[in-house]
Amino acid sequence: MSNAAYKEMWEKLDLDIDAHDGLLAVLGKFYGDIYMSQQGRLKGMEYLDFVLSEVHGLRVKELQDAKAEGRKIIGTFCVFVPEELTLAANAVHVGLCAGADAGTEQAEKLVPRNTCALIKSFIGFKLARLCPYTESCDMVVGETTCDGKKKAYEAFAEHVNMHVMELPQTKSASARELFRSEVLRFKSELESLTGVTITPDKLAKGIKIVNDKRRALQRLSALRAANPAPISGRDALLINQVSFYDDPVRFTQSVNALCDEMEARIERGEGVVPEKTARLLLSGCPMAVPNWKLPYVMESSGAVIVGEESCIGTRNTRDLVDESADSLDAMIDAIVDRYMRIDCACFTPNTERLDNVVSMAKELKADGVVHYSLMFCQPYAHEALKVDSALREAGIPMLSIETDYSMEDVEQLKTRIEAFVEMVK
Amino acid sequence: MSNAAYKEMWEKLDLDIDAHDGLLAVLGKFYGDIYMSQQGRLKGMEYLDFVLSEVHGLRVKELQDAKAEGRKIIGTFCVFVPEELTLAANAVHVGLCAGADAGTEQAEKLVPRNTCALIKSFIGFKLARLCPYTESCDMVVGETTCDGKKKAYEAFAEHVNMHVMELPQTKSASARELFRSEVLRFKSELESLTGVTITPDKLAKGIKIVNDKRRALQRLSALRAANPAPISGRDALLINQVSFYDDPVRFTQSVNALCDEMEARIERGEGVVPEKTARLLLSGCPMAVPNWKLPYVMESSGAVIVGEESCIGTRNTRDLVDESADSLDAMIDAIVDRYMRIDCACFTPNTERLDNVVSMAKELKADGVVHYSLMFCQPYAHEALKVDSALREAGIPMLSIETDYSMEDVEQLKTRIEAFVEMVK
Ligand code: SF4
Ligand code: SF4
Ligand code: SF4
Ligand code: SF4
Repeated sequence: MSNAAYKEMWEKLDLDIDAHDGLLAVLGKFYGDIYMSQQGRLKGMEYLDFVLSEVHGLRVKELQDAKAEGRKIIGTFCVFVPEELTLAANAVHVGLCAGADAGTEQAEKLVPRNTCALIKSFIGFKLARLCPYTESCDMVVGETTCDGKKKAYEAFAEHVNMHVMELPQTKSASARELFRSEVLRFKSELESLTGVTITPDKLAKGIKIVNDKRRALQRLSALRAANPAPISGRDALLINQVSFYDDPVRFTQSVNALCDEMEARIERGEGVVPEKTARLLLSGCPMAVPNWKLPYVMESSGAVIVGEESCIGTRNTRDLVDESADSLDAMIDAIVDRYMRIDCACFTPNTERLDNVVSMAKELKADGVVHYSLMFCQPYAHEALKVDSALREAGIPMLSIETDYSMEDVEQLKTRIEAFVEMVK
Repeated sequence: MSNAAYKEMWEKLDLDIDAHDGLLAVLGKFYGDIYMSQQGRLKGMEYLDFVLSEVHGLRVKELQDAKAEGRKIIGTFCVFVPEELTLAANAVHVGLCAGADAGTEQAEKLVPRNTCALIKSFIGFKLARLCPYTESCDMVVGETTCDGKKKAYEAFAEHVNMHVMELPQTKSASARELFRSEVLRFKSELESLTGVTITPDKLAKGIKIVNDKRRALQRLSALRAANPAPISGRDALLINQVSFYDDPVRFTQSVNALCDEMEARIERGEGVVPEKTARLLLSGCPMAVPNWKLPYVMESSGAVIVGEESCIGTRNTRDLVDESADSLDAMIDAIVDRYMRIDCACFTPNTERLDNVVSMAKELKADGVVHYSLMFCQPYAHEALKVDSALREAGIPMLSIETDYSMEDVEQLKTRIEAFVEMVK
């Protein structure tokens, strides 16, 4: 990363330059250790390496250029905020989920100590002035998914321009109505922020762009059923992570190119690991950049990750928006239907997720599942117990991991995962 | 408690008789230490002492008698479930909130370790077969208030006949619609369970009975503005706790009689403590029987509690249902309006609560506020920070306590509270 070239931009965004330099140095080293050390990577990963190396540089510069053209930047924390609408309003949609401990002390003045690392992280990044994405946002969209985020947004709203969408907690007809009205409210909010009227044409285009992105990621996901595994779990996770802030059209092209390369590799019977390597499915809470700890530990313990049943993974790509609608109203309905299918643990009941985990494990020929929940994440901690029973019934072993962003438990994780890998193979 | 006389009933309810005997012995001793040791109690508290001494006896017998007559028993965990409808269906409404550690080990197989004590307690009571109320219920009504309860009900539903009401998380018009439809769904569920059709007449009567109960508790609450305090906080808490399972009409009469006695005492300038005693408001999570630890510590530290800003307190009694409606539809609207005014931390935003805490503290002439949240309760832990700022702005000191049902922190609590009392006086 050529920091010097971007220093002025970061200063304009009022980042804490010294702390930010420190962060980039740590991130670079971490990335080197976890990513660049891999053997037999796909050539297409060069694009991802480049994007990641420029995550606080070139892409942020693009956001500033977009802003200079009058486009607005919309920050989100959850896959329930319809990117289709953002794109239809000619705005840029970026994920603000954060995967590193930073500004924790400051964050704990705004939110309780017993808050999950993801929430503390995005608040810490803001308070410590470390995240150029947050600082670029014209509007940040929250949602009432879990208690932690719902209440944290109240405090966060004192620092950013917040719009909170109410998400229902069941999938009843009345719940759908509530969500539909919230999607419309988000649409109005976007229109008044951007000055753009969302027309059926623009929305159809937005739907198409986001569906294409999902189709590329679905393709990637399906190719991972091959044995030997054609791509490492770390690389696949990185691709999913980058999908939240890269330009969607460019990103889709590069994922499709990568899939072409993977197909050729599969045809040749080649992979990143030997055929007999233990294949694990990762399931649970989203893993935001640079939260690569657990995947790294898993893939250094004689296993390969073949899928991510998470929001930074298949939960975000499994369903498409129906493209056959031609009126605005019908498109909104198609969007609502698609989003109401998401199997997030914030719903009750959420039995679809149990079915999805089991069928993913089978399709991807996983030998076992590692369920990951962030400490203090109640929705996923509850579901860990349910996923465990569902998998047990299907004869698939599961290991339940509860962790956070600190590195203190790496050795302990390694011991547990090695034992699990030994057991499933 | 004459255990022998009720043994047969408890056996029929399939309680674990030995463990239950042990529980009653501990409860009796605890009650003796915390309640019977008080000086200058109101004569009207004899009724409450009696009810409490018969909490697993006479009142449970009454429930069995009601069941024998064909009436149904509805168990609840939250003040959002409209008792008005239960009464209109000629059913009995009881609170199942639990305030003691029991069956924790079994509970932790159904819900995560990082779950609040209240949830673990009601699950533990069920799994350890200790609660005659839970065992008497024909239907248990949950609500999607916090993540912990929302997800715990999924597991609980494997053990009881559960009906879960979806509660919205904001107070928008669409959110109100969702809640209204859930109130109607609860009404249908009650009607099909009881075979009783809820008519306007029956509902008007239910509304009147519950309003009368709230009016009596409002009267009690207002009298506590007197200095010296006419009643201890422990006794007032007990009254609020008993309001969740006693017969509502009988209970209302006894509270009104107690208020008459309090008025006479106030007129004579008498109280339970000297005039100069530090007056504290308790605010936060509900305290279910026998969760008397914190009130006891506070009132043994030179303070008197003058109000409970909680669901087992004013949050449940502040608002009445408008009695002027005469059609069923209008009554449902009146109920919905009343319940949507509740200032629970599960809403975002929930600024009403901040106003309510400040005005209660002023009206009751509190010298300070003790904010109480159960460990792992995210909604109230977040609001503790907000209540603190609101009170600071109003010049009222606040102490934030996070605890659970164990007795391990009693000494530490005592030290902190004594220092706070010293500071506010
Ligand atoms: S896990 Fe649930 S709350 Fe979190 S990003 Fe995914 S959908 Fe949103
Ligand atoms: S990891 Fe869990 S607690 Fe944290 S933001 Fe996501 S759903 Fe909420
Ligand atoms: S605190 Fe909220 S969730 Fe708990 S009983 Fe009261 S209203 Fe219900
Ligand atoms: S105390 Fe908090 S976490 Fe526990 S049930 Fe009540 S609202 Fe939920």
